[in-house]
Amino acid sequence: MSLICVGSLAYDAIETPFGKRERIVGGSAAYVAYAAANFVKPVNLVSIIGNDFEEAEIKSLEAKGVSFEGVERVKDKKSFFWSGKYHMDMNTRDTLVTDLNVLADFNPIIPNSFQGSEFLMLGNLHPATQISVINQMKTVPRLIAMDTMNYWISSAIEDLKLVLKMVDVLMVNDTESRELTGEYSLVKAARKIMEMGPKFLIIKKGEHGALLFHKDEVFFAPALPLEEVFDPTGAGDTFAGGFMGHIARTKDISFANMKTAIIVGSAMASFCVEKFGPERLKEINKKEIDDRIRQFIDLVNFDISLV
Amino acid sequence: MSLICVGSLAYDAIETPFGKRERIVGGSAAYVAYAAANFVKPVNLVSIIGNDFEEAEIKSLEAKGVSFEGVERVKDKKSFFWSGKYHMDMNTRDTLVTDLNVLADFNPIIPNSFQGSEFLMLGNLHPATQISVINQMKTVPRLIAMDTMNYWISSAIEDLKLVLKMVDVLMVNDTESRELTGEYSLVKAARKIMEMGPKFLIIKKGEHGALLFHKDEVFFAPALPLEEVFDPTGAGDTFAGGFMGHIARTKDISFANMKTAIIVGSAMASFCVEKFGPERLKEINKKEIDDRIRQFIDLVNFDISLV
Repeated sequence: MSLICVGSLAYDAIETPFGKRERIVGGSAAYVAYAAANFVKPVNLVSIIGNDFEEAEIKSLEAKGVSFEGVERVKDKKSFFWSGKYHMDMNTRDTLVTDLNVLADFNPIIPNSFQGSEFLMLGNLHPATQISVINQMKTVPRLIAMDTMNYWISSAIEDLKLVLKMVDVLMVNDTESRELTGEYSLVKAARKIMEMGPKFLIIKKGEHGALLFHKDEVFFAPALPLEEVFDPTGAGDTFAGGFMGHIARTKDISFANMKTAIIVGSAMASFCVEKFGPERLKEINKKEIDDRIRQFIDLVNFDISLV
Repeated sequence: MSLICVGSLAYDAIETPFGKRERIVGGSAAYVAYAAANFVKPVNLVSIIGNDFEEAEIKSLEAKGVSFEGVERVKDKKSFFWSGKYHMDMNTRDTLVTDLNVLADFNPIIPNSFQGSEFLMLGNLHPATQISVINQMKTVPRLIAMDTMNYWISSAIEDLKLVLKMVDVLMVNDTESRELTGEYSLVKAARKIMEMGPKFLIIKKGEHGALLFHKDEVFFAPALPLEEVFDPTGAGDTFAGGFMGHIARTKDISFANMKTAIIVGSAMASFCVEKFGPERLKEINKKEIDDRIRQFIDLVNFDISLV
């Protein structure tokens, strides 16, 4: 009972240059949970679903060790639905449809049985909702990490500034870090963001890897060079799930261990993009994960003697 | 007498968001030589200059250990001149002026005293010129590396394909690797390029680091996250100079040592962008270089035990 993940469950329609899926399970919490459950069980999910969310998808997550006790089921509405289409370079996408449905009324409640969880991952939600979750925790978690997006930076900056003072780790992409601070240099942006509250900052750069900042230290993890990025949907959430899963498994919140957690997150994200939605995450096993982490070691490991 | 660098010497006019220089020494060979001379002496320069090339600039390079014996001096023409202006994001620039001047007639001659050099760096020149240099070498160098650019890919592809069969290492940027192969995926592009001849391929991604490919192996070196990139001019050539300087110093052409050489090249490039043109390269010392390489070790080093 060590990791709580709060976020959306959804159905997505996705089109990439390699094909399309009309209806595939998605939402930040699905990706976080699928990734984290490889490292820690149970993953305590807090989310909301409608009457169209299939029992088979619930069973699939539960089989991985995800608890649905904190997932609200709304009988007369549909689940959150998102549809997007990726451009040829896979770095940009157009959102075609966003039907909030049940997510419009999402007011997450932490079940009593989830109290005492040591680690909390707040997916991309209204910052006021993120604050509400933190305030429900009777014991302050050892580490609180959160995601956000440009929409909240422009529409809810005051609430966002409040929640930033309450969390330990912020995960954003490079564009969001620039929008949040007005600084183009990521090093300068990182310094400003850490002054806003988070002791640790992860800046995700997609295919160009991720940076971890803490005080004056910086660590870089590359993305694995892949033959094909099949579908980038959920890669950032999968990264977060791998990161928090490793932290929750090791219960070590040092900077040194966060570096390792970033590598684990990057490895999980590299699986995510190999198939549509969370399809690849549903099938991977421990050996594949270990092999992938070894590829990351080979990718960046070098010997040097300064003479 | 182990490293020959063939390339341009020039004057540049550079404007960046941080200021401008009306006239500063440049050209690929200047950057390669300034970087490589920190690791191996002499650096045997093969280039061409006009009547406007200042003696002080020659003395500055000679003081670093660069030999001008292979530099042709043309009395009735001016040196190659390039002028460019960088956009705010520093990733794109407009070329304002390209006056080839002496470079239009550059027909490099390898002096007898340079024969026997074990390492050869061919800067970005017409591929037929690069072939002419290789053919002049009475003993085949242990390692031949070359740079090229999109201009030759579109205007001299047949000559380019010929020279690619004669070299060991190709250095290009990500865009060039895609143009050369028609593949968007860098992994696929790398495989196609290695089939064209080079056993080793370096794909430079600017602020996003560099990849080294060899057979089925891949290594990634990040760029150092910097507060400011002051002027990116010459960073790629400086990278090449650091890479070849390290190889020439260690005389080790294994994949393992090339990984180290990429880190050394990345460290040198990180100095280059801190001031205009090669200004920063003129002043750095061994201690600063060692400290910078340690920063790269800290940047990517992590511990993991797979349990």
